[in-house]
This record gives sequence, structure tokens and C-alpha cells, in this order.
Amino acid sequence: MGLTLQELAEVAQAQLRGDPGRMVDRVATLQDADEGAVSFLANRRYKSYLKTTRASAVILAPADVSDCPVDCLVTDNPYLAHARVMNRLYPSAEPAPGIHATAVVDPLAQVAVTAAIAANCYVGPGAVIEEGVILGPGCVVLENAYVGAGSHLVAAVTLCSDTRLGRRCLIHPGAVIGSDGFGLANDEGAWVKIPQIGRAVLGDDVEVGSCSSIDRGAIADTEIADGVKIDSQVHVAHNVQVGRHTAIAGCAAIAGSSRVGAYCTIAGGAGITGHVELTDHVHVSGVSSVTRSISKPGVYTGTVPAMEHAVWLKNFARLRQLDDMVRRVKALEQELASLRPDDHGR
Amino acid sequence: MGLTLQELAEVAQAQLRGDPGRMVDRVATLQDADEGAVSFLANRRYKSYLKTTRASAVILAPADVSDCPVDCLVTDNPYLAHARVMNRLYPSAEPAPGIHATAVVDPLAQVAVTAAIAANCYVGPGAVIEEGVILGPGCVVLENAYVGAGSHLVAAVTLCSDTRLGRRCLIHPGAVIGSDGFGLANDEGAWVKIPQIGRAVLGDDVEVGSCSSIDRGAIADTEIADGVKIDSQVHVAHNVQVGRHTAIAGCAAIAGSSRVGAYCTIAGGAGITGHVELTDHVHVSGVSSVTRSISKPGVYTGTVPAMEHAVWLKNFARLRQLDDMVRRVKALEQELASLRPDDHGR
Amino acid sequence: MGLTLQELAEVAQAQLRGDPGRMVDRVATLQDADEGAVSFLANRRYKSYLKTTRASAVILAPADVSDCPVDCLVTDNPYLAHARVMNRLYPSAEPAPGIHATAVVDPLAQVAVTAAIAANCYVGPGAVIEEGVILGPGCVVLENAYVGAGSHLVAAVTLCSDTRLGRRCLIHPGAVIGSDGFGLANDEGAWVKIPQIGRAVLGDDVEVGSCSSIDRGAIADTEIADGVKIDSQVHVAHNVQVGRHTAIAGCAAIAGSSRVGAYCTIAGGAGITGHVELTDHVHVSGVSSVTRSISKPGVYTGTVPAMEHAVWLKNFARLRQLDDMVRRVKALEQELASLRPDDHGR
Repeated sequence: MGLTLQELAEVAQAQLRGDPGRMVDRVATLQDADEGAVSFLANRRYKSYLKTTRASAVILAPADVSDCPVDCLVTDNPYLAHARVMNRLYPSAEPAPGIHATAVVDPLAQVAVTAAIAANCYVGPGAVIEEGVILGPGCVVLENAYVGAGSHLVAAVTLCSDTRLGRRCLIHPGAVIGSDGFGLANDEGAWVKIPQIGRAVLGDDVEVGSCSSIDRGAIADTEIADGVKIDSQVHVAHNVQVGRHTAIAGCAAIAGSSRVGAYCTIAGGAGITGHVELTDHVHVSGVSSVTRSISKPGVYTGTVPAMEHAVWLKNFARLRQLDDMVRRVKALEQELASLRPDDHGR
Repeated sequence: MGLTLQELAEVAQAQLRGDPGRMVDRVATLQDADEGAVSFLANRRYKSYLKTTRASAVILAPADVSDCPVDCLVTDNPYLAHARVMNRLYPSAEPAPGIHATAVVDPLAQVAVTAAIAANCYVGPGAVIEEGVILGPGCVVLENAYVGAGSHLVAAVTLCSDTRLGRRCLIHPGAVIGSDGFGLANDEGAWVKIPQIGRAVLGDDVEVGSCSSIDRGAIADTEIADGVKIDSQVHVAHNVQVGRHTAIAGCAAIAGSSRVGAYCTIAGGAGITGHVELTDHVHVSGVSSVTRSISKPGVYTGTVPAMEHAVWLKNFARLRQLDDMVRRVKALEQELASLRPDDHGR
Repeated sequence: MGLTLQELAEVAQAQLRGDPGRMVDRVATLQDADEGAVSFLANRRYKSYLKTTRASAVILAPADVSDCPVDCLVTDNPYLAHARVMNRLYPSAEPAPGIHATAVVDPLAQVAVTAAIAANCYVGPGAVIEEGVILGPGCVVLENAYVGAGSHLVAAVTLCSDTRLGRRCLIHPGAVIGSDGFGLANDEGAWVKIPQIGRAVLGDDVEVGSCSSIDRGAIADTEIADGVKIDSQVHVAHNVQVGRHTAIAGCAAIAGSSRVGAYCTIAGGAGITGHVELTDHVHVSGVSSVTRSISKPGVYTGTVPAMEHAVWLKNFARLRQLDDMVRRVKALEQELASLRPDDHGR
């Protein structure tokens, strides 16, 4: 199922420089590509591989055309064009509809005829599985959960009761959606669990990575808007709201009742504390902790870069002395001011 | 199954101000509540919603009574009263006892007649499932594990061999309890795995969140005491001991052989290094790293707050200069002292 | 199945001081050991327990022999000797070969006759399960995955399509290997998913802890070399390469396309940013963030130690003033220099 470069240019929405009839049937990195492969250059780090690539064509930006030894597809956003080409050359597999003999579907569940339910799945009473949904092996969909049309649970995904997924969601193995949030009241030292009755509600086109947890709301719902992309090992706590097209990278966490706006990016390992609000277009850097609300779009960072251990040892003990040092510097400034010739009337 | 406010006041252990015969049948937030709903005010942030609430009654503290436009249930701990009301109005579902046809229970396992084992579960040889236990769909209980009376594994939980759960534990999907700790000896560069023969032993009323890992002990046991509450995405490493009624929030981690006391709180994303001891009533703030033992109760913090990226860029490069700066400030102080008029006798 | 101390000394590759015929049949800690148990002393913290131990023998270093009240096995690496003894006294269980009746093995999968496939497993089309492999209950092996001889998936492990495991790998419950990486292109605010077509390829003797995620490559493969040991709750992102015998502790994360050398250790909670390269023998301390490439072996640290909250409050606000402080110190130095007598010709 190869494509001509002409066809590929249309898919990529890029301008072709080269032989419109040349065939490609796969994507490869600049280093690994050979005849029949299309490659791309979207990250400066890999520019050095361009000159020697043996790809049949390369997707790249106008500035790189002159360095390209082979045919090219030129566009201002080579990574997006690459994404389009990937989706065309590597369409996702479509298993045959139907319910595997070992899947357990409760009589009170509704499963659309075009849905595919694989081996060892469980679908509980009141659950609804819409048209074209794919449940891979070992998925658990508890009572009253709803899976919108075209959504795909790859394998071993758990949707807890009342969870609601929009259309075309993609949920990776080990992800748990709609589990209880951490709601506890303290009774003279001992914790009393608070039943969590809100839902986890995901919009359309949401992706959730492997082993990520999105907790259900305490009373109102946890809400993940359309187009939100969540990586692996992420925790979204109860009552959180995440706005449209926000991306949350691996190991990031959003604590309870916080709201993240639309078009934000939360980088890997970053954390948002509870009960704060981030406006749209906020970008939190890797391993940074947001400890208060952010009302101004922009990039926010608190990363402490690792350094040679000896350097760290010497300097980080000083963190406890910052306040003292600021006060000492101020005192020095005052004393020095008092020593200035004109201050002494000389 | 509504309750009168009179009944509700007894459940909540609160004082009623209003119509004892008014009925409520659900809980809602101050914003969303309407007739028939009881709400609560436990966090200052939401006080502004009180004046316009349409709830039938609100649970609140004495100081807020005068601002409440509707009936109220007054108590010094509104959040605890809310928890009690939630538990009354939203009792957990009780599936019918019995073993689902697709569950695999080893002939050498013991399952109490009042236990409920759902679809696609596995219970291994020597495992014991006590009275009233609920195993939701897809749970795996390996050989010789013990599940105490009334415990509930929601779905897709894995208990490894020899794991021991007390009574009324609640374990959420994706949690893995009793898996091997990270025990490795180094043999000229290569790692030799050390079999992990201790158990993970959980007390009564322990809750473990989705996708959390509690590792078994290397030789002695990992021990989680009664009433400990653990959120999602938490890692408790081998040989750790956690004291009674300690709460550990999402993405926190406790490294090997550390001991956390009773009545502690470990906030989200916090980390406790290995081989340290925290006394009772220690509270570790979010994303803070405890790097040594703590023998004094209190709050401990090491959070680095995210800031505008430009501010961070300018300042964080200076972390490597802290030691140098302290020494320069000291030198300045000495030189300045030597310049003081009285020091020179002038 | 006890051993004499003579036999044990051979297993441990240690020198026996004591009765060669004394029998031991188990391992215990110094505190818990009694007759018939062998213990070990490998960490200074536990030295105080040596004097009162009731173990039949203790594995220890030459320097500790004189303090040992019982027979001993002397070696320069007691922890390694302990590992060898553990492996001898606690060999892993070997389930009988065969495919459980409830396991679903696709007709197009190949399963070796000596492999053991437990209850409720799924093995997809094109998957290959080699000799002596053990799949515990509830494992999912998707299409075209390959599991090398002698590998052991404890339970509830998911191997995504095309994943390749070497020989003698040990994968713990909840781990997900070969799931999609976080590949997204931005199209005017909305994210376009990029199909992830690389594989996750693990070498021989790799261990992966509970609930860890190792993502597949975007185009080329994610590669985990022979002997790499990965703890629980770890995230290895797409295209990452990890060199031989590197160990990665709990909750650590390696972002996309980074390369970690051989014989490295990444301590708990540490993070490696994307697209960087760490040479061999790099040791990253706990909760430290590597933000750039490291070309020199050694220890790298960025841990911020938690402190009393009041101390933190006072000092950490100053982090935003570091740059200002450095400039003020420099100004003070200059002004003071201008005040020095010799600078004034006095």
C-alpha cells in the first residue's frame, strides 16, 4: 500500500520538490531510511543526519531544502506533516466486530453490533459500549460506564462505575479511569472515608497513557475536555478540570479540585497543587511544582538541575541560609553607605 | 431512601437549626444543590457560594450559621459530619455472594461462602478469602495470600503471593500489593537479583489507590498499620513500615526500609529516602524530599515553587554559587569591620 | 532442604569460620534469626544487632569477624554472598508447563511446550512464547510480541504488540511494556496523534517492577540492554536507550529519546529530561533532575532536602532574589575596594 510522492504531498499538505511518481511505503528515521522510505527533519538535533540520508524523500522546512540530498516535501510544520503521513501509512488495526466467547458482558449492558470486545473482558450492568468501540483483551468496564463511539481501550484498561468516555478516545493498558479520589475526613486522628460519587468524564479524542489514573469526582465530576492528551504514569485527582487540547506528559500530577485551562502543556514530572487554577496557554516545565494559581499565560519553571555531587553538597546546605544572607547583605549595604565620604561630611 | 433533617443530624452528630421533618436524599455542592439535597461548607474557598445555595440544608461550622440562607446542621467539624452523611446516603454496593463461573479458584484456596468473586478473577492455591470479601472483575490473588473479612478489591487488583490484608481494606484498580522489592547485589558491575521472601502485610481499614505499588519485604515484612490511607500512584518499597492512621497522597514514595510513624501525612509527590525514620505526627509537604530521619513532630517542606521562566533562568543558575556567595559576604563583613573608625582608633 | 555451612560457604564464595557441618535452612535478619538461620551484615546501620544475634551463621566482611558471636562466612562483598545464598535457599517456583483452560491463545501464536500459561491469560496472533516461559494469571501478550526463553511474567503484565523480551526477563504485575509513546504534533492548537511504530526491545535478564511503563519507540525502537534492572512505578519513554546493567529505582523517569549509558544508577524519583545522553557509570541521586547531557562519569545530585516548614518559608522566598543578591554582593565588593586606604593613595 505504497503512495507516490504526489499523493504523499497531498496527505502531508506539503509542497513536493522531486519526482511525483516515486513510491514510498514506510517511514524511517534519517539514519535508518533507505529506498522506499520517507523521513522527516523536525528537530535541529538531527540536522546532521540529513546530508547522508538515503530516504526516498524527506519532509522538512523551507530552510533545510538546500541541504537535502533527496526529494523533499516542504512545509512550515514538518512534524505535523510527518504526523499526517504516519496516520496514512500506519492506519490503526480494526479488529472484527463481535464479543469474544470468554468476554463477560452483563445482560444489562448495551454493546453496539459494530463494537469489538476481546478475550477476558468484563462489561458490567448498565454499561454502554457504542458503535465501533474496541475493547482489547482483559479490559474491565464497570457498571454504568459509557464508552463513546470509536473509542479504543488497548488492553487491560479499567473504567470504573459511571465513567464516561467521549468519541474516539484512546486508552492505553493499565490505565484506570474513574477510581475513587482521596476523600478523607479526620475523626480524632483516624480517617473516615468519604464515598466518591462524582464521575470521571472525558471528552472526545482524549488519549490516556499506560498506568495513568484519572480519579472520579468527590461529588461533582472530574472533567477532561475534548482533545486532551495524557501520557503514561500521570495522576489526575478528583474534581480536577482540564481544558481542551491540553497535553500532560509522563509522571505529571494534578492534585484535587484544580483547574487547568485549555491549550496548556504540563511537562514530565510536573505537579500542580490542589485547589488552584491555571489559565489557558500556561506551560509548566518539567519537574516543576505549581503551588499557586496562574492567571497569566506563559512558561513557568521550578526545575532544580542536577549538578556534580560535590558542587551540590557545598551549595545546597546554603539553602537554609538564604534569608540570613539577604539580611547580611542589606546590613553591609547600610554600613557601607554610612562609610561613604559624603555621608561623613568630608 | 431519604432522611429527615432530624435523622440526618443524628447521623452527622450535628445540631439542627431548621425543620426537623424536612427530607433530603442526596448530597450536592453548594453551587449545584437544589431541593432535597444537603450540602456542606468545610473549606473557606467556597464560602462565597453559601449565600446563594438552594440546598435544603447545609452542614457548617458555628461561625457560618448567620450567613446560611437555609436550614443548617452545625458542628465543629463539618467535613467529618459530611463524611458521615455521605456514608449513610451512599452505602457501598453489596454484590451477591458467590463465585462467578469465569473466575478460577484453585482447589487449594479457601473462599468463605459470603464472599463474592467476580468474573475473570483468579485465586491461587493456599489463598484465603474471608467472609464478606468482594473481589471485583479481573482481580488476581496469588498463592497463600490472605484477604481479611469485609475487604473489597474493586477490580483488576493484584495481590502477590503471601500478601496479607486485614479486615475492611479497600483496594482500587491497578494496585499491586506484595510484588518484589528492588533487591540487587552487585557482582563486578552486573546485578544479581535477591529473592524477596518477606510479605506485604496490611492492617485493618487500609485503603490503597489505583495503580499504587506496595512491595513485599526482602526478608522481614513490609508493614502497613491499621487505618493507613494510600492514594493513587504511590510507591511503598520493601521493608517499609507505616504507622496507624497515616495518610499518603498521590505519587508519593517511600524508599526501602524506612519507617513512617503514626498519624503522619505525606502529601502528593513527596518522597522519603531509604533507611530513615519519621516519628509520629510528621507532616511532609507536597513534592518535598525527606533525606534524613525526623524525630520531632511538625511540618517539613522542601517544595521549590515554579515561577515565570525568565525569573527562574536568572536565579537558578545562582544555585551553584551559593557557597561562593556566603564566603564573599563573610569576607565583605570582615573587611568592612576593619574599616570601622573605632576599629582603627582614628 | 538445608545446607551445611560448608556447602553454604561454597555457594556464597565465602570463607567459613566455624563448624562446617552445622545446618541452616533459611535466611533471617540479624534481629530475627535463630537456630537454623543464616543472616548477613552488609549495611553499617545494622552493625549493632550483630553482637546479640542468635543466627547459626552470619555472612560478613573481614572487619566484622571479631564482633561476631556465632559462626561466620567471611567475604569482601557480604551483600553479594547473601544474594547467592538467597537464590540457593529460595529458588523460584516452577509451575507445570501447559496452557490453562481459561487462557486464550490465538491459533496464530506459537507457544513452546515447556512454557506455562496460567489462567485468564491472552496470547495474540503472531506472538511467540519460548521454552520455559511462565505467564502468571491475567497476563496479556498482544500480537507479534516475543517472550524469550525462561522469562517470567508474574501476573497481570501487559506486553503490547511487537514487544520483544530477551531471555530470563522478570516482569512484575501491572507493568506495561511497549505501549504507545507520547507522540503528538500540533495543528493550530489541537494535537494530532502520531502512530508509534517502533518497538520496546528488552535484552536478557531484564527485570521490570510493578506498575512500570516502558513505551515503544516512535519509529526506531526503545532499547533496554541486557541486565538492566527497573523498579516499580518507573516510566521509560519512547526511543529511550538504556545501557547494560544500569539500575533504575522506583518512580524514576526517563523522557523521550534520551540515552542512558551502561552501569549507571538512577535513584528513586530521579528524572532524566528528553534528548540527552548520559555516559556510562553515571549515578543520579534520588529525586534529582538531569536537564542536560552528562559526559563525565560520577555522581550528580539536585535534591532539595525538606526542612522545618518555618525555615523553608523564610528561605525559599529568597530563591527569586538570588540573582539580585549576587549583583548586590558584587557591587558591595567594588564599593568596598574603592574605600580601601591604598586605593585612595592614603
